[in-house]
Formats: sequence, C-alpha cells, structure tokens
Amino acid sequence: MTLNQFYVDSIIKTALKEDINYCDVTTDYLIPENQIGIGRLMSKAEGIVCGVEVAARVFQLLDSDTEIEILKKDGDSIKYGEDIMQLRGKTSVLLKGERTALNFIQHMSGIATAANKYVKIVEGTNASIADTRKTLPGLRPIQKYAVMCGGARNHRYNLSDAAMLKDNHIDAAGGITAAITKLRSRIGHMTKIEVETRNLDELREALEAKADVIMLDNMSPEIMKQAVEITNGRALLEASGGITDETLRAVAESGVDIISVGALTHSVKAFDISMYVK
Amino acid sequence: MTLNQFYVDSIIKTALKEDINYCDVTTDYLIPENQIGIGRLMSKAEGIVCGVEVAARVFQLLDSDTEIEILKKDGDSIKYGEDIMQLRGKTSVLLKGERTALNFIQHMSGIATAANKYVKIVEGTNASIADTRKTLPGLRPIQKYAVMCGGARNHRYNLSDAAMLKDNHIDAAGGITAAITKLRSRIGHMTKIEVETRNLDELREALEAKADVIMLDNMSPEIMKQAVEITNGRALLEASGGITDETLRAVAESGVDIISVGALTHSVKAFDISMYVK
Amino acid sequence: MTLNQFYVDSIIKTALKEDINYCDVTTDYLIPENQIGIGRLMSKAEGIVCGVEVAARVFQLLDSDTEIEILKKDGDSIKYGEDIMQLRGKTSVLLKGERTALNFIQHMSGIATAANKYVKIVEGTNASIADTRKTLPGLRPIQKYAVMCGGARNHRYNLSDAAMLKDNHIDAAGGITAAITKLRSRIGHMTKIEVETRNLDELREALEAKADVIMLDNMSPEIMKQAVEITNGRALLEASGGITDETLRAVAESGVDIISVGALTHSVKAFDISMYVK
Amino acid sequence: MTLNQFYVDSIIKTALKEDINYCDVTTDYLIPENQIGIGRLMSKAEGIVCGVEVAARVFQLLDSDTEIEILKKDGDSIKYGEDIMQLRGKTSVLLKGERTALNFIQHMSGIATAANKYVKIVEGTNASIADTRKTLPGLRPIQKYAVMCGGARNHRYNLSDAAMLKDNHIDAAGGITAAITKLRSRIGHMTKIEVETRNLDELREALEAKADVIMLDNMSPEIMKQAVEITNGRALLEASGGITDETLRAVAESGVDIISVGALTHSVKAFDISMYVK
Amino acid sequence: MTLNQFYVDSIIKTALKEDINYCDVTTDYLIPENQIGIGRLMSKAEGIVCGVEVAARVFQLLDSDTEIEILKKDGDSIKYGEDIMQLRGKTSVLLKGERTALNFIQHMSGIATAANKYVKIVEGTNASIADTRKTLPGLRPIQKYAVMCGGARNHRYNLSDAAMLKDNHIDAAGGITAAITKLRSRIGHMTKIEVETRNLDELREALEAKADVIMLDNMSPEIMKQAVEITNGRALLEASGGITDETLRAVAESGVDIISVGALTHSVKAFDISMYVK
Amino acid sequence: MTLNQFYVDSIIKTALKEDINYCDVTTDYLIPENQIGIGRLMSKAEGIVCGVEVAARVFQLLDSDTEIEILKKDGDSIKYGEDIMQLRGKTSVLLKGERTALNFIQHMSGIATAANKYVKIVEGTNASIADTRKTLPGLRPIQKYAVMCGGARNHRYNLSDAAMLKDNHIDAAGGITAAITKLRSRIGHMTKIEVETRNLDELREALEAKADVIMLDNMSPEIMKQAVEITNGRALLEASGGITDETLRAVAESGVDIISVGALTHSVKAFDISMYVK
Repeated sequence: MTLNQFYVDSIIKTALKEDINYCDVTTDYLIPENQIGIGRLMSKAEGIVCGVEVAARVFQLLDSDTEIEILKKDGDSIKYGEDIMQLRGKTSVLLKGERTALNFIQHMSGIATAANKYVKIVEGTNASIADTRKTLPGLRPIQKYAVMCGGARNHRYNLSDAAMLKDNHIDAAGGITAAITKLRSRIGHMTKIEVETRNLDELREALEAKADVIMLDNMSPEIMKQAVEITNGRALLEASGGITDETLRAVAESGVDIISVGALTHSVKAFDISMYVK
Repeated sequence: MTLNQFYVDSIIKTALKEDINYCDVTTDYLIPENQIGIGRLMSKAEGIVCGVEVAARVFQLLDSDTEIEILKKDGDSIKYGEDIMQLRGKTSVLLKGERTALNFIQHMSGIATAANKYVKIVEGTNASIADTRKTLPGLRPIQKYAVMCGGARNHRYNLSDAAMLKDNHIDAAGGITAAITKLRSRIGHMTKIEVETRNLDELREALEAKADVIMLDNMSPEIMKQAVEITNGRALLEASGGITDETLRAVAESGVDIISVGALTHSVKAFDISMYVK
Repeated sequence: MTLNQFYVDSIIKTALKEDINYCDVTTDYLIPENQIGIGRLMSKAEGIVCGVEVAARVFQLLDSDTEIEILKKDGDSIKYGEDIMQLRGKTSVLLKGERTALNFIQHMSGIATAANKYVKIVEGTNASIADTRKTLPGLRPIQKYAVMCGGARNHRYNLSDAAMLKDNHIDAAGGITAAITKLRSRIGHMTKIEVETRNLDELREALEAKADVIMLDNMSPEIMKQAVEITNGRALLEASGGITDETLRAVAESGVDIISVGALTHSVKAFDISMYVK
Repeated sequence: MTLNQFYVDSIIKTALKEDINYCDVTTDYLIPENQIGIGRLMSKAEGIVCGVEVAARVFQLLDSDTEIEILKKDGDSIKYGEDIMQLRGKTSVLLKGERTALNFIQHMSGIATAANKYVKIVEGTNASIADTRKTLPGLRPIQKYAVMCGGARNHRYNLSDAAMLKDNHIDAAGGITAAITKLRSRIGHMTKIEVETRNLDELREALEAKADVIMLDNMSPEIMKQAVEITNGRALLEASGGITDETLRAVAESGVDIISVGALTHSVKAFDISMYVK
Repeated sequence: MTLNQFYVDSIIKTALKEDINYCDVTTDYLIPENQIGIGRLMSKAEGIVCGVEVAARVFQLLDSDTEIEILKKDGDSIKYGEDIMQLRGKTSVLLKGERTALNFIQHMSGIATAANKYVKIVEGTNASIADTRKTLPGLRPIQKYAVMCGGARNHRYNLSDAAMLKDNHIDAAGGITAAITKLRSRIGHMTKIEVETRNLDELREALEAKADVIMLDNMSPEIMKQAVEITNGRALLEASGGITDETLRAVAESGVDIISVGALTHSVKAFDISMYVK
Repeated sequence: MTLNQFYVDSIIKTALKEDINYCDVTTDYLIPENQIGIGRLMSKAEGIVCGVEVAARVFQLLDSDTEIEILKKDGDSIKYGEDIMQLRGKTSVLLKGERTALNFIQHMSGIATAANKYVKIVEGTNASIADTRKTLPGLRPIQKYAVMCGGARNHRYNLSDAAMLKDNHIDAAGGITAAITKLRSRIGHMTKIEVETRNLDELREALEAKADVIMLDNMSPEIMKQAVEITNGRALLEASGGITDETLRAVAESGVDIISVGALTHSVKAFDISMYVK
C-alpha cells in the first residue's frame, strides 16, 4: 500500500515552501553546488516505520537525480539503529530536504507505532482498533494512511461517507427509531448508519431499528459485556470515550468489535529518526 | 495578536473540505434547515487557550449569519469547565463545523499550554523557551503562532531567514571561522548567524568569529555553565538536544539564553475541549 | 439541503476566471458603471430546479451589493414560464454573471430533472435510483448533490469510502469468498462491500460470504427476479448495465433494491433556463 | 494538436483527488502491489475519439513506469471494437486510473463526435459549425479543444477576447451604430465586434456600422437567405437559436457563414468506451 | 471599469502571504490591538492613478471593518500632493497592509502613467498605442487593465485569442498566402489574423491574402508612410520594433493605426505614492 | 545557487496559463506537430544574466523531450551577441514557450544587471547594496533571487522575519528605548531589530538601546559620516531614501554599511534578450 504520488507531491511542496521559501542561506552560500554527499535515515527508536516513500520523494522533488535506496517499507517493524533509506545526491539537496523529510516520516511513524501498540494490546480478542475524525487540518489522508500501516482500521473518512446519529439528530427526528427510518429512506445504499447510545435501552432501540453500527459511549467494560450479549451479532459495536492504555484490554475483552481512539491522530508523539549526511 | 484572516480562511477551507466534502449525510437529512441552536465550547482541562478566532471563523465560513460571543482570547489562561465561546446559529451549521473547529483549537491550545508549562519551569532564570522547525507539514504558521501565545519565542521560521551552521557547512568551508567569514560577506544584514558547537573549543572559535548565536548541542548543564562564563554576553547561547522536563530547570539555571524544544510542535498533545449543542 | 458556500465559491471562481478573465470588453466599455438593472431567471422547461443558490452566489461574488430574491429552492418542481429568482444590481454585474450562472443552474437542473424522471418511473416498486462514479472531472460534488435534489440516491463517492469487488479483485484473491474474507479483515467497520456478479451462482457465493451489496451485472429482469428470491433480504441487490428508459420499469419490478444509472451524470442534457435583464 | 501537459496534469489531479482520495480500499487490500497487468481501451461506438493523451496521462501520473501504446490520436475516426490504447503496468494502477481515464475520454469523444456529426450535415455549404460559451464549469479548455478535434470551430473563448453586442449594450449606447462606434474607439485592434440582430433592419444598421460579425437570432432559413443577400460578404453572418438536427441543413443552405450550437458543450452524451484489464 | 473582486482577492492574498507570512513581529508586539489610526495615500508625482480599488481591498482583506474613502478612481489624473484615499481602522492593519497596497498601486499607476504619456504624444494622429504580451509572470490581467486605464489599447491577451504569423509559421505553410488561407479555414470566426512583414512586398502579399492586421516590423517612418498608402484601409497596420520616445511621433504621423510598445509592461517605473499613518 | 524547481514550476505554470490558455491558434494550425527546430537565446545587451534555469524549464514543462544546452549560468556576465542557451525540440514547443521564457529571463536579468551596476559603484567602500520589500506581487522570490545573483544583498524577506521600528511603533511604545526593550523581551532570538532614525539624536538613542541595525532616513552624506563616527561599529547603519545614481558613491563613502534601493525591484528595466528559432 502506498499513497498516490500526485497527492504526496502536493503536500510535500506545501511543506517545502514553508521550510525553504526561496533559498537556504546557509547551504546556498557555503556548500559547493556540485558537491556530492551520502545520506541515511536511521531509526532511533523501536516501532513501525511509515512515510518512507514520502520522505524519499522530498529529495526527488528537490532534485530528480538524487539516488535513493529504500531499506524499510511503510508498515515494517524497525529497531533502534536500523537504516530506513540511503541517499546519494547533491549535498545541498540532502541538507535542504532533511528537515521536511524528517517532519513527515517522524509524524507518520509516530502514528503507525502508536496504532500498532494498541493493536497488540487487543490481540486475541474480537476487537479492532479504529481512528476518528480527530485529525490535524490538512493531514487527514496522511494520518489515516499511517493508521492503516500500523495495522489499525479507518473509521469514516468524513461526514459524507457514513452516518453517525448523535443526540441532536435523534432529538430532531423524534427518537432513534424515527431517525434511522428517515435516514434509511434517503441515504445511499453503500452508506452505513451508526448510532451513539449511552445505555442499554438505547442500544436495544438502535438494534430494533437495524442500525449497522452502535457506539457504546463511555460505558464500563461490564455494561459493554451485557451490550455484546444483547446485540448477539445483530450489529457492530464500537466502544468509545475515556479509554486509556490501562483499560483498553478490559474493554477489548468485553467482546466489542471496534475501539476507536482519537489520540491516534490528535495527540501524536513523533518517532525518533535521525538523518546523517557525509 | 491574531492570525491574519486571509491566511486562516485558507487553512480552514482545506480542513472543511477534508471533513465535510459535499454534504453531511446525517445532518443534512435529519436536522431541519431552519432549526436554530445554541452551542458553546467548554474547556475540560487547565492551560492556555489558543485558536479561538480560528474556531469561531470555522462557523462563520459555513454560515456568515452565525452569531459568536468570544469569552476567552488566544493566550488566556483557562480552567476546567470554563466556556471559551458561545454560538447561536443554524443547528446544522453548528454540527457540521464542530469537529473542524475542535481539531484546530485543541491542537493550538495543546501547543500553547505545553509552551507555557516550559516557560513557567524556567521562570526566574535568564532562559527563554523557543520552538524549532520540527513542525507538522502545512501547519507551521499556526503552530508558531500558538507557541507565541503560550509565552515562548519563535526560532527562525525557515531556511531563508536565518543561518545555522552545521557540521556539513563548517567542513565545506574549512572550519567555523572560515564559514562565518564567508557567510557574513554574502548574507543580508538583517540575517543572524548561529553555529552548532559540540564542545567549548568550538564555542571559543565561534565567539572569536563573532557568531550571533551559538548552539550548545547536547551538553551537560555543568559544561553549559562554563560556556556561559566563557561567552560573557558576546553571543546568545542556545541549549538544544536531549532536554527533558526533568532536566529543563537545571539547563535554564546554567545561564543560557535560549532553550529550544522540538516537542512543542512535533509531539503535541491535544487540549481537551468539548462542544455542546442544544 | 445546500452545498457549503466555501466549496461553491471555489468552483464559481474557477468558472468566472474561464468566462471573464480580466474584463468584459463589451460591457465594460458600453454599460455605465452605475446603471442599475433588474434581472430574472425564468424556466423554459418542466422539471426539478437545482443550483439556485449557486447561480445566486455568482452574482454576489461579482458584487456583494446585488440584491437577490430566491423564488424556487433546489429540488423544487418548476414549470415553463416560472421565475426562479429575481435580481437587482448593477447592470454590468448582471450581464457579466449571466452565462456562468446559467451554465451552473442548467447543468444541475438537468441532472435533477433526469434523476427525478427515473425516480418516478420506478415509483411504487422496491427500487431506488442511484448515481455512479461516471461524473465529469471537477464536478462530482455538484453532480452528486443534484442527484440528491432530484430524489435519487448517491452511490459511493470514491474508491476510498466503499469497496466494490470486480473480476480482477476476485481473481487476485482466489474467488469471491476469499476476497470478501480478506477484505473484511482489513477495511474499516463503516465501509460496505459490494460484489459484482454475472450469474446466480456467483450471487449465491457472494451471499454466503456475506457481501453487503451485490451487483447484478447485465442480467435480464427475469433472472433478477430469481436473484431477489434467492437473496431474500440477506443483501441489497443493485441492478446495473444496459438499462434503458424502456426496460427500467421492468427491472424495478423484479424486486431489486437499487438501479444505478451512469447517464445521470455522464450524459447530462442542460435544462433550459433564460435570464432577462432590463 | 495536443493540449499542454501542464494544463492537463492539473485537471487530472483534481479528478483523481475526487475519485481516489487517499486510497482504493478494494484494490489496495486485494491486488498484490507488484502484480503486472495488461489493459486496453476499446471503443464501443462509432465516431471521433478525443482525450487519448489525457486518458493516457492519468495512468502515468499514478505511476510513471506505466507503458502505453497509443493507437488512435485525438480527432481520429473510430469504429466499434477498435482499440484506442494498450497499457502495461501495475494492475493496481490500471484499476485505480480506469474510471478517471474513462470519464475524460468518454466526455471529450462525445463532444468531438457530436461536433463532427454537425460538420458533416453542413458539408458542401458555406457554413461552419461553432461552439459557444455554454460550457461546463472548469472544463472549458477541454471542451473547446474537443470541438476543434471534431472539426468544428471555436467561438470566442471568453468575455475579454471578443465583443458581442446584445440588447442591453445597444440600448445603453443609444442604438447599434452608436454602440459599435463607441466600442471601436476603445477596444483592441485584434478584437472583433459581433452584433445580435433580430430582423433585417437591425442587420442593415449593423452592416452600415461595419460590425465584423452579425448574429441572426432565431430567424427562419428564408429570412437568413435574404440576410445573406443583403450582406453580400460585408460581414460574417452567424445563425443562432432554435436550430435542431432537422433544420440544420436548411439553415446552412441559406448561405450563412457560421452556425453556433450550444448543445455541443452543454448537453454532451458520453461516447461509449470500455477498459479491459487482465 | 474595475477589475473583478474575485480575481483581485486572489492576487492580493498571494502578495500578503509574501509580505506578512504569519505575523508582523514589529507591529504585533508594539501596536495595541485596538488602537485606531487614520491613514492616507498621497501622490508624490504627476500622472494617471491606477490600482485604487486594489489598494483599498488590501486593507479590507486584512480587516473588513476598515473604513475607506476613495478620492481618485482608476484612470483619473493626479498631481503631486493630492490624496488618493483616506482610511480609518486599526493602526495595526494600516501598517501591515501599507507595503502591499503601495506595491500594487505604484506599479499599476506607473503603467497607466506611461501609457497615457504615449497616448498624448500621438494625439491628433490616426495612431493608437497598444501593449504586448511582454508582461510580468502572474501580473498580465493587472498590467493589461492598467494599460486600458492609461487610455491605450490591449493587443491580444494570449496565444489562443488571436493569430500572429511569424517567419516560422509562414515558412512552414509555404508563404504568407498559403499560411493565411490555411489558417482561415480552421480558426474561429471571432479570431483576427495578423501577419508580420519586413518589407513592402510582404505587405502586398498579406493584403492580397486579406490579413486583418499587418505588422510593419522595424520599418522607418518613410517606409511606413508608403505602407499606409499601399494599404489604403484594407487592413489595420501595426508599427512595432525599435520605436523610442523620440521617434514615436514620427511613426504615428506616418498614418499607421497601431503602435505597440513592450516597455509599457516589461519595463515599468513605479509611480511615487506615500502612505501616512497617524 | 539555483531556485528550487518545485517553486519555479509553480510560477512558470501560472505564466504559461496566462500566455497560452488551451492552445496557440497560429502554431497549432500551421506548424506540423513533428517538425523539429533549433532555438537559441541571445543577449542583446551587456550585464548579468539571471533566470537561465527558469527559462530553460519553461520549454521542458511544455515538452520534457526538449534538449537544452545551457551556456551561461545565473550571475554570469554577458555581452551583446553572446548565446545564453541552445535548444532542440519540437518547433511548436519552441514557439509556444518563447514569450514566457523571455518574460522571465529579461525581468530577472534586468534586476541582476541593475543590482550589479550599483554594487560596482560602491566598490572599494564599506557599503553593500540591499533590496527592499518594494517588490512586485507574486514575484518576490524571483526578484530577491535576482538581486543575489547581481551581487547585492537581501533585506528582510517579510514582516515576520525581522523587526523594523517606524514612527508609529515608536510612538505607541513611548519612545525608541521603550520600543526596543519591549520588543526584545518577546521576539525570537534569531530576529534582528532595525530602527528608523531621522537625526543624530534618534541615532544615539537607538545605539543606547542596542538596536542591531539603524536606518538613516533621508540624511545627507555629511550627516551620515557623523553617524558612522558616533556609531563606531556598535550597530549596522543603513542609508535609505532619496539616493540616486549620482549621489550613491558619496553615500557609500560616508562609511555606512548598507544602502537599500527600492528601484532594484519596483522599477525594473527588462534586459534585452532575443530568441531565434529555425
């Protein structure tokens, strides 16, 4: 799986404009234009690498003659000290692209690594980890892709491709049943309907109304277990809200199908990667 | 201090395109178009709020008739339970804008709050906290602005507006002195020169060569203290590398002028804010 | 339901740049700048109007002082001779915006009217009409919106928000069952899976593998009727391929759930609307 | 004649963003990344093909290693069953680009084919077929190009490159003569002036005032014949309004120079082309 | 005559991004946010003012509450010391917009003033002054508009809206006659054909072939006078090449219709305007 | 030193869209598509050439098969009659790109040549020549780059990367000392502060307050000489305002460090370069 190059190019150019503007005063005045250098990106942590193609593309957009050998692919496990890619090209190009390339690959690897950590915590249970729409402005495609590379799943991409009934929608329609019925009569046949529920009564009503997915909002693992029994496969159950590293396993063991985690994309810790240029 | 609206509009539109695409299937089919609602953004944490105008603008770009009362300004302290703004407008607009508005204000407040935490840790010393170029693609203006709102300072914006001599530059020029001399003869008179140093000998050479700013790279607080004495005000000293929450105060007490922290922008923890719509 | 203004503005500006460039040589030299005129858009056909807000916005983007009274809303039925909106503003603005406004509203009303015609043909049956991804480059949001205004439904928006298994996918995975199973283990829980089938055996396999939606590709109404009986509500059935105005009713009466029609968006006949300026 | 690649790339990227967003969930999860496939685009109708280079470029923008053999060029005649191009590349790339490539080539070939049909109807007369400004938003360059490939001619591109006097302009200036005189004293020397006329008196006045082109608006072929005689080569005559397939030949035989047809671009019927991937 | 606001906004935003980026460090830290100031733009030279609306719009895009009184319109004559507009708004906004507003209005007024100077030199002759395609990248609409405001005329806007036969075209077609004939059979009926000629023989051939416009390339005024006699109104004559302020009047008196001047847009001298803020 | 290709491509595409739109009616209809031509760009003046890579890139963006031999690099001296580059490619491509390529290289070489002229005038003195923010909208990166190629220096790029205290700022803060003190406590450590002064008293105050750079606004060379003595190396001195070719040497000999010249970018005279195609 790789991001489409036409999309990648566009966001890289935005990043390069931010970071270089029209020149690199240090490099342009001090590094001879034809000096050739060797660079490598090395992991300084353990996890899942992501954004390798994006980082490589940064250098190619600066100079299409840059030679790049990719050693790790998006989604690969990586350990401290392992090289991700090696580069050979103009030293000036390696230095100008360094920061932008690292900003991408560190952010994306941070997401993939966090996603993978959660995936492993729930391993062996019925539960999958999913992201949310709590993404950073302009970075949703890159963030959702990194989540996939980490082995987790993508929730709906935006407000147009799946329905999620919240309080306001339910109240306006006059109840869960009315809301689902009305919606079902209008939306596309490829569009799933999810309903937020806060207790088992609401769950039962959503099941009756044939919701595709039901969110269990801020429920305890015990209540979730009951929800799983009541549901008995008639809908997918998504746990959401107030789940921490500590409670995650217990939630997963309740039998829910999906656990969505906003922090995957809204609170990303950069993955430590260094670039060395000689 | 506020971000320019023409800039803000552009990034908000990008975010709205990501989050709404051409419709909100849930809201468009269930919420009556003329239903009026009341919304408010409430803090669920303690810190510095930032991105208030941006969040407000999200709703105005969706419907210019939305009425907004701003209760907290960018840079204000905020506690759990305090309202940031109140809105009155079409319920559909409040629901469609909610996620995008929160994505902005939670990220920016997260940065401002972290920046402010560091600022307070070094309070009473000579040191200022600064950001770096380790920003997220496309978000540099917003992130640098949030750093300012948190009371910290901005490092150079990009590679064109200040010079930073690293190993490769120094080696290519034949040493620190040669590099600074060559650069000084070419770069603009408004452009400062910073030099990365790894030991006190390099520091001394940079001082002799009249660097404006000298980075002390991965030095211990004790060595930094000596660096401060040697420098004696002839250049600004910037501590960088391997500084943690625990060591920050000690670094600051060494007498350095600037401590730059990449995590301010590359590893942001979203600030918890909720929106309620009635 | 209305398109978001921030999106609308962007495509209108593209259209205005195409149609006006930097001046209107005829109007700029001959119409006194302060001459005020009255305009109206009148239907010259019968059908469903769509693009009213877009057309109105064209004039407001040229001059925000233009006064507009909207008489018909997107999705309204309209007859020959009925007015859609009335305008009062600078004559030069009315003349400059006329062609662009008409190009939008005629195209969108053409789609809505065609969609509605099909919807009426299948009235009383179980079938809904849906669009496809056979849209015109750059116009998908506007076209999908017009389909909704005509009373039909939207198929998946793009390749990322729903899965559609074609021959190549099935062959690569080693059969329908293998393909669905593999896909189900990876894709998001809000994402439906549709399978193309060419005969009743494939239909049966897709049903066993629990496809959400099954496409009946180029089958006769008689075979479709059998497919409906076999399926018995276990999946949604979509008829596609080779359906004409003449066969549409028969297809609908076979009991399928969805009939998708590429012509809705790839072969649009403009709806006749004139603008009069005095 | 080919469209400029820099322009083509820009509209293709817009289309790909609409159709793919950040991934193709079906293809990305089921087609092995290195699987190589063979594709071909085959005509399923008879007419003039157009958009060949554009369709080919879609696949190259997805993967520059895709090998493409072009068998038909823009403007070539084509019959049912003939291949337009053959492709060899990653199966995933062929599948991801298919819909976008077809959307372009089917629309453009539809225009070229319709234009050519009209051109043939008027063959042997003095008349040429021309398009209008009734184009689809954002697609004017592609549509005007397809008209040319079909053998018809382009009317003015936009409001800035030629003048067209309508009622409002004439009234504001105080008559046809006054309007032309005033305009001639200001507009560029490369800019032609056309005048709309509704009867032979207006035609005579426009001729006296030395209009370059005169539009005969909604006149019968008989009146047009008189107009041709009166004009006697002093200006070009353009027939417009209410012309159908049935009346087109009669109009052309009246001796007019140009017959402009809005339907060429505002009511396009997609040309049937299929893509096969193995 | 005014530029369309949607176009103007786009280029102003580009300019503001260049000039402000995300903040004005001086103003944002020193000018109280609510301080109100009075500004005025004053001419420090004599000529034709142009870009007034554009300059005003700069301040409104920074803050829509800025009040602006426009005292001179595009195309008005202006003397040293006269005010062009007065502004009342946030001091910070006036200071941030100053440079961008001046950059526009000084450039555009420089063009209009130069154009007007040439127009006056040829006053009383048959000749008009025209611009060329020798414009600055990205500024063609603004520059062509300023030429109009100075009283001169616009040559063709780009390569698609009028034909100009140069040596290469003529050679490829096999002579002037062949080239015009071939072109006439294909191009749109609203498109004029101009031919470059270097001597009277070429002029005669172009006349025979019914070129609409004939360029007299680098001919002396005496030869041009003969060209005018030979032509006798059968085509428009454009003088071009090597014309200076000193020879302009003589060229105009030769009787040519058009004199095109590249320097109008490729070598612009900024018009001196100052802004004062209190 | 070269401009980044990703940036260059973007502005070239803007220029090509302006100049070609969707076709070149003359070339597309008259030049056989496969005709190969030879082109060369030749200098018709003496100075410093700049924009060579940009001009070359124009042709490669039109057709990547165009072969280009570059004979002069940005910053090289050039004389009348010398060739800058030679091209081999489709004749149609050479003709279509000619005007756009020349518009870039003539403007950029004009700036580099003017900058170099000023640099030579002040040769042997302490003074450097600098540009200003008086640039043309959208062209700042290209113009600043050309200034560097001419051997002069760049002033601050925009309002965010260096501080410049003008009257309004000083008044709002309550004097020069207060303004510098306040600003120093907030702005980044890489940001220099410049103060505008109108007399020697203000200069003394600015020196006391430790301004990095002090502008001597509209002072005579004699007063500047005193300023230099008073300053004695404690700050950089920038002369600005009312400096002409005639007074430049005298100003430089006063001992100031920087002389900034707005005309370098706001009043550019195109450098004469021709392109020949065979």
